[in-house]
Amino acid sequence: MGKECSEPVTQMHLKPKMTVGELVSAMGEAGAYNGGALSRAAGIYEAMLREKNTTKFFGLAGAMVPAGMGGVVSDLVEGGHIDVLVSTGANLTHDIIEAIGCRHFHGTAFCDDVELRHEEINRIYDVYLPNKAFEHFEEFMQNVFSELEPDSTISISDLLNHIGTRTKSGILHTAAIKKIPVYCPAVQDSMVGLQYWLFSQTNNVTVDAFADMPALMDRCFTAQKAGALLVGGGVPKNFILQSMLMTPNGFDYAVQLTGDRPDLGGLSGATLDEARSWGKITEEAQAVTVYGDATITLPLLVAAVLERMHHG
Amino acid sequence: MGKECSEPVTQMHLKPKMTVGELVSAMGEAGAYNGGALSRAAGIYEAMLREKNTTKFFGLAGAMVPAGMGGVVSDLVEGGHIDVLVSTGANLTHDIIEAIGCRHFHGTAFCDDVELRHEEINRIYDVYLPNKAFEHFEEFMQNVFSELEPDSTISISDLLNHIGTRTKSGILHTAAIKKIPVYCPAVQDSMVGLQYWLFSQTNNVTVDAFADMPALMDRCFTAQKAGALLVGGGVPKNFILQSMLMTPNGFDYAVQLTGDRPDLGGLSGATLDEARSWGKITEEAQAVTVYGDATITLPLLVAAVLERMHHG
Amino acid sequence: MGKECSEPVTQMHLKPKMTVGELVSAMGEAGAYNGGALSRAAGIYEAMLREKNTTKFFGLAGAMVPAGMGGVVSDLVEGGHIDVLVSTGANLTHDIIEAIGCRHFHGTAFCDDVELRHEEINRIYDVYLPNKAFEHFEEFMQNVFSELEPDSTISISDLLNHIGTRTKSGILHTAAIKKIPVYCPAVQDSMVGLQYWLFSQTNNVTVDAFADMPALMDRCFTAQKAGALLVGGGVPKNFILQSMLMTPNGFDYAVQLTGDRPDLGGLSGATLDEARSWGKITEEAQAVTVYGDATITLPLLVAAVLERMHHG
Amino acid sequence: MGKECSEPVTQMHLKPKMTVGELVSAMGEAGAYNGGALSRAAGIYEAMLREKNTTKFFGLAGAMVPAGMGGVVSDLVEGGHIDVLVSTGANLTHDIIEAIGCRHFHGTAFCDDVELRHEEINRIYDVYLPNKAFEHFEEFMQNVFSELEPDSTISISDLLNHIGTRTKSGILHTAAIKKIPVYCPAVQDSMVGLQYWLFSQTNNVTVDAFADMPALMDRCFTAQKAGALLVGGGVPKNFILQSMLMTPNGFDYAVQLTGDRPDLGGLSGATLDEARSWGKITEEAQAVTVYGDATITLPLLVAAVLERMHHG
Repeated sequence: MGKECSEPVTQMHLKPKMTVGELVSAMGEAGAYNGGALSRAAGIYEAMLREKNTTKFFGLAGAMVPAGMGGVVSDLVEGGHIDVLVSTGANLTHDIIEAIGCRHFHGTAFCDDVELRHEEINRIYDVYLPNKAFEHFEEFMQNVFSELEPDSTISISDLLNHIGTRTKSGILHTAAIKKIPVYCPAVQDSMVGLQYWLFSQTNNVTVDAFADMPALMDRCFTAQKAGALLVGGGVPKNFILQSMLMTPNGFDYAVQLTGDRPDLGGLSGATLDEARSWGKITEEAQAVTVYGDATITLPLLVAAVLERMHHG
Repeated sequence: MGKECSEPVTQMHLKPKMTVGELVSAMGEAGAYNGGALSRAAGIYEAMLREKNTTKFFGLAGAMVPAGMGGVVSDLVEGGHIDVLVSTGANLTHDIIEAIGCRHFHGTAFCDDVELRHEEINRIYDVYLPNKAFEHFEEFMQNVFSELEPDSTISISDLLNHIGTRTKSGILHTAAIKKIPVYCPAVQDSMVGLQYWLFSQTNNVTVDAFADMPALMDRCFTAQKAGALLVGGGVPKNFILQSMLMTPNGFDYAVQLTGDRPDLGGLSGATLDEARSWGKITEEAQAVTVYGDATITLPLLVAAVLERMHHG
Repeated sequence: MGKECSEPVTQMHLKPKMTVGELVSAMGEAGAYNGGALSRAAGIYEAMLREKNTTKFFGLAGAMVPAGMGGVVSDLVEGGHIDVLVSTGANLTHDIIEAIGCRHFHGTAFCDDVELRHEEINRIYDVYLPNKAFEHFEEFMQNVFSELEPDSTISISDLLNHIGTRTKSGILHTAAIKKIPVYCPAVQDSMVGLQYWLFSQTNNVTVDAFADMPALMDRCFTAQKAGALLVGGGVPKNFILQSMLMTPNGFDYAVQLTGDRPDLGGLSGATLDEARSWGKITEEAQAVTVYGDATITLPLLVAAVLERMHHG
Repeated sequence: MGKECSEPVTQMHLKPKMTVGELVSAMGEAGAYNGGALSRAAGIYEAMLREKNTTKFFGLAGAMVPAGMGGVVSDLVEGGHIDVLVSTGANLTHDIIEAIGCRHFHGTAFCDDVELRHEEINRIYDVYLPNKAFEHFEEFMQNVFSELEPDSTISISDLLNHIGTRTKSGILHTAAIKKIPVYCPAVQDSMVGLQYWLFSQTNNVTVDAFADMPALMDRCFTAQKAGALLVGGGVPKNFILQSMLMTPNGFDYAVQLTGDRPDLGGLSGATLDEARSWGKITEEAQAVTVYGDATITLPLLVAAVLERMHHG
């Protein structure tokens, strides 16, 4: 039966109090479907974090901060595990909301949305966010924007860095402290963007859509090795993967956690093998996709890798 | 903003060496999407296992044994956590294959299936099973079937119990030892069934399709409380849920782990709320669906609940 | 750029009053993702229906009859396009319900299922079925079962054929008229099965689970060519595909319409290429999967193929 | 059984040569799952197109142009059925590629991507695009960009309009002719963006990320009624829906065609009811989601509505 059949599936046996690292190892010994993929993802992500001279990209799409995943991301920034962060505007909006002391709440997806509307509660699947939070958000954002130098031109990452210096916790704050650039190509497409539009009606500061590209491209040209952890698809995934297209390089490590599917053709659900044809990831890149909800797969992956790193 | 917004989302912070139980608790504090649902599932499954006088059903669909999940199921049987097991024929086929010493192997889904065919390897997504296993399987099954009393009539669960007394490990074996009935309404639809057809060409033993119903229905009528853990949909899910339809009772606890989706209308992806309209589960039943791959969600759920039970 | 790039994507232009066949042809000229797959499916299904000496299997899973797809299936039987039908018990239950004059109704999936319970309405996603229908169903079924010869043994397909001779329309009725066997390996797993259990409490007729296998296997051994249209997965898909496993043959044509996904490992979402490794379909078989809701893809496929057949 | 059960499901009967409009009507009479939703979508989209004084938004995400759907979109622009178009950068990139005479090709998703890389073919699921196209694209884009006024500041929509005046067919061209604004908030995130970065290394033209907001917001404030057809999620969906948030208005009509799912929490898969809680769509808005591949659902929807409009 040949070498294809050398590594047997191990039937899984669970024990009380096993660690997350032990569980993910057991998934690797079982080795099938997305459990197997998650275990391989842990191996790749560990290698990527351990490899010196690897530039580590992180893509953040999906409504992850409202689901409590912001803490995982800011801890990764804090721990030096992210060099370049690319996010949707929505995640940054909710990061700021939490950072200024407002909260998201446990709700239910099976509800009457017109009633919620009347109670001034905005729904994100089963998370509720009171309108009140957006009032505080508006006050905070207008304040922060008012500090921008009149008649200047600013890049999106500088704008976000400026916000991060004014918050006291969260992703933008930690990134500002650690001097990690946060890119958000579609910043207009978020409450941050709407607040900026409001500000811009009476102020003249130009946000240059392309001002972040030179620094990012320099980084891609000079990276000895590159790795990416992609949570969800959307702009963050594509913006990270395309960044290598103009260089002779490609990503050497890539892990994506997505709930999408490839057969619809969209980039969000595209396999990482597809990215090989484009040269976005190298021919030899270690790459794996784990299909599923990132509120499950991201904590599993990160906790398992932290445990392995902790052992030295 | 009212009582809908009383329980805030907690941003998640992971620690090296945290236990699976701790991780699932953190998912509960974050509380959103399928991570939140998984945490609620752990609460419900724990309550269901702790509640005395609860009849505990387990539905096993999807290719779980080839993915190493058979060990989790047989341990649950061994631990007294399953009173009634309903399975697809395929899972039982692969359980027998492992029990007679054959193995499944780690493979890849990105391969040439015609080449695999030439190498006599059967593929189940990224799991490989050599044809050789089916040769051993045939020999074993024909042997076991030959022990059946000629000209008799037998129920499906008795047939499966008989197989379990001849294997030395696995789900059917453990169930036979623990005297747990295993129901498999569509046993014909599996390699067990094809082997039985082969046997029946020269032997006269009748498998009565409905012979299992009276004992099952009695159990449903007399159950003080009932709970179900449903892995995948298919026949096991429906057969378990419908079993309460003819009784004044319904399931009091229900957890389903599925990768399907509700909007296609099929029962496999149907919500448990839909089951309330039918009276399959009670109006007050604690019930939750976790969407995702059961090779991830089943071990997470079971390890977390074992940890909680272990603490007493 | 080689021969891989010889057939260009044609940008689609739609016209008022275009026929379904014209639309599916346009999807073929665009040729991508599931639209392209649907067009290829039409080509394969047309070839399969036109090819003389092809035994034509049809697998019916998912809640298709409550969604009005039963009419499409009974018309295919009527038109001589189905030689062997394999169905879930649920579809046959709902077929009988419609055939005895009860109806399913347009509802909504966004509702209070406890309220529906109080109003005695059973929900299937956004289809409603009043309990009343099950009262008529019970009366009808008990009547029909009472005509079975006492102390006899019967196969599942004979039981279903008997029901079909007593209904006046629908799938079972048309199949009975056209003498097309209907297989339902898991008949216990349905309201038909529950009614049979009720009947069997006071009557002694044995339903032999394996009695249908010899005729089916004979058919598979003698088929010159074989083709399958698989709507959904579950027992029908597996039972059809496995039927060729014991023969030297395999399916020459295969089309599956499914909303499932392959990466979860279950057979319902498995690709037809996976089936090649097992020899269920031949190495050269024309086969394609169209992912999506069969309430859209089945009518599109069948209407387009009927149009092509009509032209001669 | 009450008024909930007044509209019965009609079993579907197909006829050769039926028109797309007739098929979609039959789906409406069947009325279940996504087939039923598609029929309701046709009703809403027809009402939205017929209603005078309705501002008609169109969101274009997913790799639709490589799949031949660009023709459908440019025809809708041509026909006056789109007032505001929001697109991903990728769709516009591929629109330009087709407009300058390069082609996408039918390929397969089951291939060796490293081999494709060696043959200089880029893959988008089962669509192939030779690298050569990007060489022509680069030449064209650099030429077009070189015509921009030095040291000026430009909005994204003006940049795209400028491109559209230089192409001879396609979405951007038709939009330029018809003076329809095309918004692309994340233009950097595309090959258009990478080409612009290349241009900007030696030229000084500022693309103002927010310059499009005032005109868009004015439009939202003054719209008497508003409707949206959303193909896929991503930035286009959110950017369109959020545009009403700062106004007292909301969308009165909304149809989304998506392959995503709601339970992952991301906006791409979110229901339109969720949008009601935010006030993005009005409390009374006619809104429906059709789940499935837009290469199937978009042509079905548009062809059916064109047929209805054609009848007067």
